[in-house]
Amino acid sequence: MEKKARVLIDCDDEKGLVYKISKVFYDRDLNIDSNREFVDKEEGKFFMRSVVIGAFEVNELKQALQEITPKNAHLKVIVPRRKKIVILATKESHALGDILIRHEAGELDADIEAVIANHDVLEQLVRRFDIPFFYVPTEGLTREEHEEHMAMVIDAQEFDYIVLAKYMRILTSSFVSRYPKQIINIHHSFLPAFIGANPYKQAHERGVKIIGATAHFVTDDLDEGPIIAQDVIPVNHRLEWRDMQRAGRDVEKIVLSRALNFVLNDRVFVHGNKTIVF
Amino acid sequence: MEKKARVLIDCDDEKGLVYKISKVFYDRDLNIDSNREFVDKEEGKFFMRSVVIGAFEVNELKQALQEITPKNAHLKVIVPRRKKIVILATKESHALGDILIRHEAGELDADIEAVIANHDVLEQLVRRFDIPFFYVPTEGLTREEHEEHMAMVIDAQEFDYIVLAKYMRILTSSFVSRYPKQIINIHHSFLPAFIGANPYKQAHERGVKIIGATAHFVTDDLDEGPIIAQDVIPVNHRLEWRDMQRAGRDVEKIVLSRALNFVLNDRVFVHGNKTIVF
Amino acid sequence: MEKKARVLIDCDDEKGLVYKISKVFYDRDLNIDSNREFVDKEEGKFFMRSVVIGAFEVNELKQALQEITPKNAHLKVIVPRRKKIVILATKESHALGDILIRHEAGELDADIEAVIANHDVLEQLVRRFDIPFFYVPTEGLTREEHEEHMAMVIDAQEFDYIVLAKYMRILTSSFVSRYPKQIINIHHSFLPAFIGANPYKQAHERGVKIIGATAHFVTDDLDEGPIIAQDVIPVNHRLEWRDMQRAGRDVEKIVLSRALNFVLNDRVFVHGNKTIVF
Amino acid sequence: MEKKARVLIDCDDEKGLVYKISKVFYDRDLNIDSNREFVDKEEGKFFMRSVVIGAFEVNELKQALQEITPKNAHLKVIVPRRKKIVILATKESHALGDILIRHEAGELDADIEAVIANHDVLEQLVRRFDIPFFYVPTEGLTREEHEEHMAMVIDAQEFDYIVLAKYMRILTSSFVSRYPKQIINIHHSFLPAFIGANPYKQAHERGVKIIGATAHFVTDDLDEGPIIAQDVIPVNHRLEWRDMQRAGRDVEKIVLSRALNFVLNDRVFVHGNKTIVF
Repeated sequence: MEKKARVLIDCDDEKGLVYKISKVFYDRDLNIDSNREFVDKEEGKFFMRSVVIGAFEVNELKQALQEITPKNAHLKVIVPRRKKIVILATKESHALGDILIRHEAGELDADIEAVIANHDVLEQLVRRFDIPFFYVPTEGLTREEHEEHMAMVIDAQEFDYIVLAKYMRILTSSFVSRYPKQIINIHHSFLPAFIGANPYKQAHERGVKIIGATAHFVTDDLDEGPIIAQDVIPVNHRLEWRDMQRAGRDVEKIVLSRALNFVLNDRVFVHGNKTIVF
Repeated sequence: MEKKARVLIDCDDEKGLVYKISKVFYDRDLNIDSNREFVDKEEGKFFMRSVVIGAFEVNELKQALQEITPKNAHLKVIVPRRKKIVILATKESHALGDILIRHEAGELDADIEAVIANHDVLEQLVRRFDIPFFYVPTEGLTREEHEEHMAMVIDAQEFDYIVLAKYMRILTSSFVSRYPKQIINIHHSFLPAFIGANPYKQAHERGVKIIGATAHFVTDDLDEGPIIAQDVIPVNHRLEWRDMQRAGRDVEKIVLSRALNFVLNDRVFVHGNKTIVF
Repeated sequence: MEKKARVLIDCDDEKGLVYKISKVFYDRDLNIDSNREFVDKEEGKFFMRSVVIGAFEVNELKQALQEITPKNAHLKVIVPRRKKIVILATKESHALGDILIRHEAGELDADIEAVIANHDVLEQLVRRFDIPFFYVPTEGLTREEHEEHMAMVIDAQEFDYIVLAKYMRILTSSFVSRYPKQIINIHHSFLPAFIGANPYKQAHERGVKIIGATAHFVTDDLDEGPIIAQDVIPVNHRLEWRDMQRAGRDVEKIVLSRALNFVLNDRVFVHGNKTIVF
Repeated sequence: MEKKARVLIDCDDEKGLVYKISKVFYDRDLNIDSNREFVDKEEGKFFMRSVVIGAFEVNELKQALQEITPKNAHLKVIVPRRKKIVILATKESHALGDILIRHEAGELDADIEAVIANHDVLEQLVRRFDIPFFYVPTEGLTREEHEEHMAMVIDAQEFDYIVLAKYMRILTSSFVSRYPKQIINIHHSFLPAFIGANPYKQAHERGVKIIGATAHFVTDDLDEGPIIAQDVIPVNHRLEWRDMQRAGRDVEKIVLSRALNFVLNDRVFVHGNKTIVF
């Protein structure tokens, strides 16, 4: 029976890879629906994402690819299925709301399993959409204890990715390392400018003429994970920092949703501190 | 001896093309330096641009590719060489000047063989760069006669492309058809808005909040050729149409140079009235 | 008691207007919170928007301004109040959803009185936000009869503006003329390109490299009212027209919300077929 | 006899300023050609730029304005005249070339008095335009000695502004303080990201999806002066850092020329580390 797979290959570059890989597809009579490659020449790395259609057996296909690629190759043969996400939020609704509306419209390739927040102000909005909302208060808890509570609620869900939709608490290394390459954040700044707290105030004080937002995977280093998407808007002297913040929200939500879409469609490779987005 | 070729393939889509093409490369021990494909599914067309490195013979490689691609395939095996261009201009210097400066800096992958204009105001600028300037006046000539004169001067040059760097005369079909897919124009508008004369005045009268420029191949239909590149800038009510024109010039020159760069690097496929730019 | 007013003046230009107007403010001991002027020199028109703070009486202030401005001056002294809007929609939820989320977050300076649609698919979304939803089916009705039904539902509401959040039916002149300068539309195109039906398909067929959206007041001429805001995003050959449509939705919703914000804050002057946005 | 003046006022904010200033214009029967004000409420500062036309005497007008503005007011009454600039460069020609072409076209509101460089590679380009070129070599000189040589050549010219068109040496505080608010730099980065050397390499290593350029006044702090203009372009994983550099050059030259245009038209106020650009 015909089916579709997204084949993701990430390995050391060597001569003949495209030929050998496409031969595997050809030998199985698979149709290539789309195909993109990239070679990072500085690092000698090969990246390829093919969408193939045909009658194949996932493990057999994967093994065939393994045989013709270098030993350290990362190979994925993904039969597209609806993914699941968990959203972490705090008080602001613009990024969360944008995802909720897309979800409602059937335009998000994922189910929202739960929204988990360290404040309760977003509860009503989330409940309007019949999505489970969990309030994990911070009072009386150390950062580590609160994260432990968060993790308990998170781990009780089934999920592929954790989306920080303006979750305004800094995460510890130990929390982050539980979910490697699974946490996507929207940083309210054009990274690497204005790392840290209140970037709009920083941007205003610096007198910049453009502000932006950055969606990235979260790694140990705060604000330093691999960037998935960025965008900007022009500003001028007439905006106070709260106006910048307001203007910035539109960029934030669009950039986060765009990045999330890339990730849900398996279009993102993470390589060191960078991404390749096909 | 190692050399490099840009292989451009444009044909009906069919199963196995990537495999068969990469096999041709593999069998000749060629290294793929970069590789991009695109399938236009609506039209069932396959486009591929590969840069290969190795010891090959152009005709042999081309023939081998011909054997494994559909009959109507367009195949090019281009060993990169410095191309030659002829520039047509009128009175405005921004687009021409931008190309001259890039040329002087060694950043244009082409030699400028001549600048040909229907006015003489740009003569001094062009001569500053020791580039031949030809003034082809229009007085007393019909459009067809003037084009005949232009064509005589053009045809006396060796060239790959004709660049209209704000050449402000409409070209006849018969002139355009002498140089198919060879004429690149910068249209001072975000096509298809404001087709025709004085688009900045039209834009101003329409009260638009954004203006743009479009670089395209010239075909019979005025302002209707395949688009290679476009860009825009925001404007507002405070700009009179001459201010819009002034602001627009920066976009025009950047877009034309960007498009020219794509073309000179053999990165553009023309398909019907559209382009695929790899 | 201190209050705030937005003073909007739109009249023939003449010497001394700024002086005379600011004297009126000064004589009443009003503080100017912000102030913007613009003179359209081609048309000899003067536009001014001042936000003043102090103890004043609206009618007295207005009359004082009337005395020192030309006879045909349009004068508004607006004490900011929460405005009311009615939203018209069809099936798509992105633009509507964006307004609903802003409204829920308290970031829209208006109450949504009702959502009125010619299909019922958005009913659930609207009801989630406890906002009245009216379904006005078209079956069996002429265009004029359907508009009559729509108008009845609209007129039963209190409202300052009618927002067409992807309302996909063409409005007749007679409908439009009932609500002059009150109807705001988002056109899914970078006007004046691709006027009319299915602009994304048109854009795709034309092979453009940028697509956009336009928010404008609706006037008699379809797609031809004064433009309030526009924005664009880059696209390329890899997007089919439905992908362009999907990508375009983000621009549409942001541009509509931006324009709506301008209008709700009384920052937009309409002059002929153009706007001045302060 | 009718003339034109640009009136720039920068002072503590207080009630009635617009009235008092416009009264000064009105009493002298001056026509206001354009007028922009801005109040920085956080800092209680008032900024105004008016272009007035009429029969006035500069000193009398200035004194009249002095009498009705706060004591610490900075007042300028500038009768527009062609300004003079000196350009400092190193080896790259794109920013310099852009200014040369605008100058040649009569579109730069300034005369280029000289180009001064610490390398001689740009000599030919500059001489093509019949503009004096001075080569100030660095060999055998300390930074301070070289700057002393530069300053000697600079000070031998008449100039209003010094434009660093990709001058790739760091300037000492003592050099910068000789020319306060007179030095304009183009920084090949979207400040404050990637301060310091080789920002394109830094940007590439960080994997950003957007790169930009910043034009700013030079102050003691390297890369930290008041920003005049910024712009950006999207990039992706396929660009090596040299490609980013190449792509970035277009942004650099456009941003520098835009900022220079603002400055030459007296449209820029510097306030602390920020600018107000009218």
